[in-house]
Amino acid sequence: MTDLIQLGKQAKSASSQLALLETSRKNDLLEKMATALEEHIPAILEANEKDLSRAADYGISDTMQDRLRLTKQRIMDMSAGIRQIATLPDPIGEVDKMWKTVDGLMIGQQRVPLGVIGIIYESRPNVTTDAASLCFKSGNSVILRGGKEAIHSNQKLVAILQDSLIENDFSPYAIQLITDSSYEVANEFMRLNDYLDVLIPRGGANLIRRVKENATVPVIETGTGNNHIYIDSDIDLQMALNIVVNAKVQRPSVCNAIETILVHEAIAPTFLPAIETVLLAENVALRGDEKALTYLTNATLATQEDFETEYLELILAIKVVSSLDEALNHINQYSTRHSEAIITNNYFASQRFLNEVDAAAVYVNASTRFTDGFMFGFGAEIGISTQKLHARGPMGLNELTSTKYIVYGNGQVRS
Amino acid sequence: MTDLIQLGKQAKSASSQLALLETSRKNDLLEKMATALEEHIPAILEANEKDLSRAADYGISDTMQDRLRLTKQRIMDMSAGIRQIATLPDPIGEVDKMWKTVDGLMIGQQRVPLGVIGIIYESRPNVTTDAASLCFKSGNSVILRGGKEAIHSNQKLVAILQDSLIENDFSPYAIQLITDSSYEVANEFMRLNDYLDVLIPRGGANLIRRVKENATVPVIETGTGNNHIYIDSDIDLQMALNIVVNAKVQRPSVCNAIETILVHEAIAPTFLPAIETVLLAENVALRGDEKALTYLTNATLATQEDFETEYLELILAIKVVSSLDEALNHINQYSTRHSEAIITNNYFASQRFLNEVDAAAVYVNASTRFTDGFMFGFGAEIGISTQKLHARGPMGLNELTSTKYIVYGNGQVRS
Repeated sequence: MTDLIQLGKQAKSASSQLALLETSRKNDLLEKMATALEEHIPAILEANEKDLSRAADYGISDTMQDRLRLTKQRIMDMSAGIRQIATLPDPIGEVDKMWKTVDGLMIGQQRVPLGVIGIIYESRPNVTTDAASLCFKSGNSVILRGGKEAIHSNQKLVAILQDSLIENDFSPYAIQLITDSSYEVANEFMRLNDYLDVLIPRGGANLIRRVKENATVPVIETGTGNNHIYIDSDIDLQMALNIVVNAKVQRPSVCNAIETILVHEAIAPTFLPAIETVLLAENVALRGDEKALTYLTNATLATQEDFETEYLELILAIKVVSSLDEALNHINQYSTRHSEAIITNNYFASQRFLNEVDAAAVYVNASTRFTDGFMFGFGAEIGISTQKLHARGPMGLNELTSTKYIVYGNGQVRS
Repeated sequence: MTDLIQLGKQAKSASSQLALLETSRKNDLLEKMATALEEHIPAILEANEKDLSRAADYGISDTMQDRLRLTKQRIMDMSAGIRQIATLPDPIGEVDKMWKTVDGLMIGQQRVPLGVIGIIYESRPNVTTDAASLCFKSGNSVILRGGKEAIHSNQKLVAILQDSLIENDFSPYAIQLITDSSYEVANEFMRLNDYLDVLIPRGGANLIRRVKENATVPVIETGTGNNHIYIDSDIDLQMALNIVVNAKVQRPSVCNAIETILVHEAIAPTFLPAIETVLLAENVALRGDEKALTYLTNATLATQEDFETEYLELILAIKVVSSLDEALNHINQYSTRHSEAIITNNYFASQRFLNEVDAAAVYVNASTRFTDGFMFGFGAEIGISTQKLHARGPMGLNELTSTKYIVYGNGQVRS
């Protein structure tokens, strides 16, 4: 059985070194790791082949096998990702604000690493190098626990990164992998409070729920998205059609795609037949409530379950509402608080929607597909937080940091 | 048995109203609540008397009884605290930053309430009004769960606040109290994920541990402080004496007091006899390691346990170290990462200490007693976070908020 306490101690020790590392040295080590990946493409592909050959035994679907599969190009993309992270600004050491108190103390709030970050994820091996390099750049040690389907790929990738660190005189314990795929070890990992500063689960709703229910270490919940677009009564029709198609069709399997549209009854007779035409052309199955069905020719009746479901596929639920209030109520009842949008020409409707919808990202007249660290301009992304504590929305390097107060005195005592 | 789901639903519903409340209206409601407390002093004292009369049955010490006791002055202080919170700036609605992406989206990060905050605390009834008013001002509903020793006082206080809200046409569910003191209800409260956005335990180490181990909702850990002052070789002797005495003696029972001093061997022959004289005059018991004992006349031998203990009373552990490195190692091993200080005239020692000590607040030449929301200038304090996630150090109104991204588009879709 994996000795998690040993991994934890090693990670903590490496994190003290990492916290003090100059930015130039961190960037150099990241560049070296990227090069090492490129130099070991055949070995990585060989390890990945082992995982793929066992995939059928695990009953893994073709879609999932595609996520698991590495190619030369995908490995080059992974190394390019690491180089990209090396070019990003280093948040560590920044003093966000500094002020003088009435007692004459100078107090600064300085950005520091979190310490040791745990990541639990599923079958995509690119998460291994993404997460490792993001944590490294932000000065954190990382302990990775990927899915058993990708274990050979992940072991090879982490070994290459660790060897590169050793060759360049840095502790390999900055990046570690849990190789035991048992539930017992995963559960122990979630309770490793003495060594883990935070645990970030990345994956489907079941994984997230299991971590939330079992973890005693602080968790940042990521990503399920039961997202909506509300089509107000006064709209630019073509813009509304473009945005709905983009948000549903461009990449339906991701968390920032939409699952339901809410359509104001005044625009329904115009909008619904038009959107049906374009969505059917994109092979989207439509499920409408009773009112919606009166304007749709190829839709089935939506149930309550439809409005609760994050389909992650080419299905769209449609509900006709009589007012902005009804739309807001529906959203605040069914939304997983990820990304929500309104399409409107009306100033007051846009302001009410921005104020009254409780979600990580609230849009006016744009596709929800932009909820993403890269699209937001953060240059990287470790996941999208759907909780309100610590970080909300796309998380980049800044969200992998904490702060400490540094206090300069000249003899002050408290009276 | 208390229906926590009902309380949760009510809190959530009230939080939607609270989130949209204008600052002037929030301040007005806070002022009204302060007045209501002042108008009901006899009733509050009567309820408090019931708690005090049962205190002996619960085997409560005199010190704890003093914490539980209310007086007219203490109630006036509580109402003054609420009025003070009414005068503080309202963080809700602030847009910390706003930028334009390459796609032309305007993205702002806007401060919003967390939603529903749970507070678990012990016997001090002033926490009831403090926590209620801080959560209210920051736009959050609160569910309070105080100690059974203070149940009558807390019920009366919350009833007065709720009545004041009702009289002023606002939902009383913004401030609720769990009246069932059983462990079962406390444990259910810690797992109320559908309704609680965060749980903040305030109290001793046992309470914090129990919450950390049982909670599935996000927790902000507050306050144990095994704090140190390191006395470097080159110091202003009188300043060092003043700071150590202040940090140990001024209020030994609180989390920002110190428990151990580390003294550089070069200054030990001068500093230790001097500090012994002033600390003995203040009735502080000294426990030194072997080296320290050679300079002390009235100290006992410190054990490893001494260095691990947060005494919270007039006892000080003393260790002589041969270097800054040895001091840093000791601190990073034994510290609970609350508040740590160095006394030094040396620039490089001060910089290394600030960089290498991992704690919520790190001081140069000042007393650790300043780690406090009021002393930091936040105008209020809900507790002192010793974890790294979400908030670290003193937490004021800002730390009771989250953010959401508001995104202004004009038809953008993702390509």
